[in-house]
Amino acid sequence: MQPVLTTEEVHRFLETDFPQIHTDGRVMTVTEIASGRASMRLDPLERHLRPGGTVSGPALFALADVTAYVAVIAHIGVVPLAVTTSLNINFLRLPQLKPTTCTCKILKLGKRLAVLDASIFQDNPDELVAHATVTYSIPPL
Amino acid sequence: MQPVLTTEEVHRFLETDFPQIHTDGRVMTVTEIASGRASMRLDPLERHLRPGGTVSGPALFALADVTAYVAVIAHIGVVPLAVTTSLNINFLRLPQLKPTTCTCKILKLGKRLAVLDASIFQDNPDELVAHATVTYSIPPL
Amino acid sequence: MQPVLTTEEVHRFLETDFPQIHTDGRVMTVTEIASGRASMRLDPLERHLRPGGTVSGPALFALADVTAYVAVIAHIGVVPLAVTTSLNINFLRLPQLKPTTCTCKILKLGKRLAVLDASIFQDNPDELVAHATVTYSIPPL
Amino acid sequence: MQPVLTTEEVHRFLETDFPQIHTDGRVMTVTEIASGRASMRLDPLERHLRPGGTVSGPALFALADVTAYVAVIAHIGVVPLAVTTSLNINFLRLPQLKPTTCTCKILKLGKRLAVLDASIFQDNPDELVAHATVTYSIPPL
Repeated sequence: MQPVLTTEEVHRFLETDFPQIHTDGRVMTVTEIASGRASMRLDPLERHLRPGGTVSGPALFALADVTAYVAVIAHIGVVPLAVTTSLNINFLRLPQLKPTTCTCKILKLGKRLAVLDASIFQDNPDELVAHATVTYSIPPL
Repeated sequence: MQPVLTTEEVHRFLETDFPQIHTDGRVMTVTEIASGRASMRLDPLERHLRPGGTVSGPALFALADVTAYVAVIAHIGVVPLAVTTSLNINFLRLPQLKPTTCTCKILKLGKRLAVLDASIFQDNPDELVAHATVTYSIPPL
Repeated sequence: MQPVLTTEEVHRFLETDFPQIHTDGRVMTVTEIASGRASMRLDPLERHLRPGGTVSGPALFALADVTAYVAVIAHIGVVPLAVTTSLNINFLRLPQLKPTTCTCKILKLGKRLAVLDASIFQDNPDELVAHATVTYSIPPL
Repeated sequence: MQPVLTTEEVHRFLETDFPQIHTDGRVMTVTEIASGRASMRLDPLERHLRPGGTVSGPALFALADVTAYVAVIAHIGVVPLAVTTSLNINFLRLPQLKPTTCTCKILKLGKRLAVLDASIFQDNPDELVAHATVTYSIPPL
């Protein structure tokens, strides 16, 4: 399963067609696109925190959701109408105010559905702060 | 299962201890607290939208997450350290830019875990835009 | 949303096309088909128990899965190739060795996906032993 | 994270305390216990099939559930009262009537909850037939 878009091309697409993810400044960056997967980094701001100083659930959800979308379009080309149909997330450890990485692996890339596994961590890729499974619906061409 | 906090008390608590939910202005309001459940309304802003003008997944996720938290504290009293352990959400219909209600029903309120069912709709409570199941971990006293 | 098959017709279809659910005897019975929902009853046997005498997770999973399938075919007609694409189940209370009911409500019946909510209980419909969300993929005609 | 039980010890425990998993004959075997994970093999029988000759959802669910339990007890010792609190499974490809392996990786092993990732495959570990996330509740000692 080979990517059809480069990191640069994905960035340019997000810039023009998905400006909403930059509403709070450039907090999310695509860091890797490879065979069957993609990674993004979130540089959290004060606004992404919850009481106790941990990165909020919605911020981690958004990171998993966007990274899954990036992994899908990197492998099938730009599909503006792909929509998330379900997302199941487990919060495992309290994330601190520091760079947070999400790596999404494509488990299945069908004609109608893509299913991805998202691992979210901070310093240590073996100590996940959250893990998600994401399903995207791919519109008929 | 009777609530131990009123809508007014929950609002006051969110105000002082959970100011983060008002980062973008007062977009979330508790609309009902009743036996075994709670409801909140999201008045979405431009920043909550995705391409196509639909309310974003992270905005619906945040609404389900906060409503579940409100339902829990309304029934067991203020527990600042309750944390979401998992959230499974299905996106069912594309939500438009208008008031969005989430009703959370407590399925189980144990000593260590609370499990809630969240129904999110706009005009018609029978046409959900999203449905979620949320698990909160309740810290030992 | 009106059913297009009666309880009798669903039973006959399961009998001829889905004999596997009767491998252990007639332990599952359709008890209701109504607008937007269906219910089944499991009469558990010794083989459905786990240590401690509770009905096993796989038995509850199978009950939710088959009831969701029944709800789908009752509303769109017989679709032998509909397959479960995901199932999220929360176990809430330990079920005992007695009749167990599952009620499935259709949350969305789209052209490609059906999403259902399954409530599993024993004596008291307000005290669920398990709750599931089920997604079925509907094959193109 | 090192295992505290060997494959042999786990087998002996299942034999005496969990005979239910052998109701249909010895269809499930522990094939590996290693740091942070465990694997089991299901040798499916006619009774585990669905129309079309694919291994049924409940059979895959049971395999993921038991493998997760084995991974937990292999790392914390025998805890007869550990119970599954939730299981989210995605069905990715239709499994055929042949040996099926489940590898469970421990994502978190806390005092109260264990969260595991389950990958189910047949010939090719990179082509999953199903993927699950399992949460076990660990009883207070």
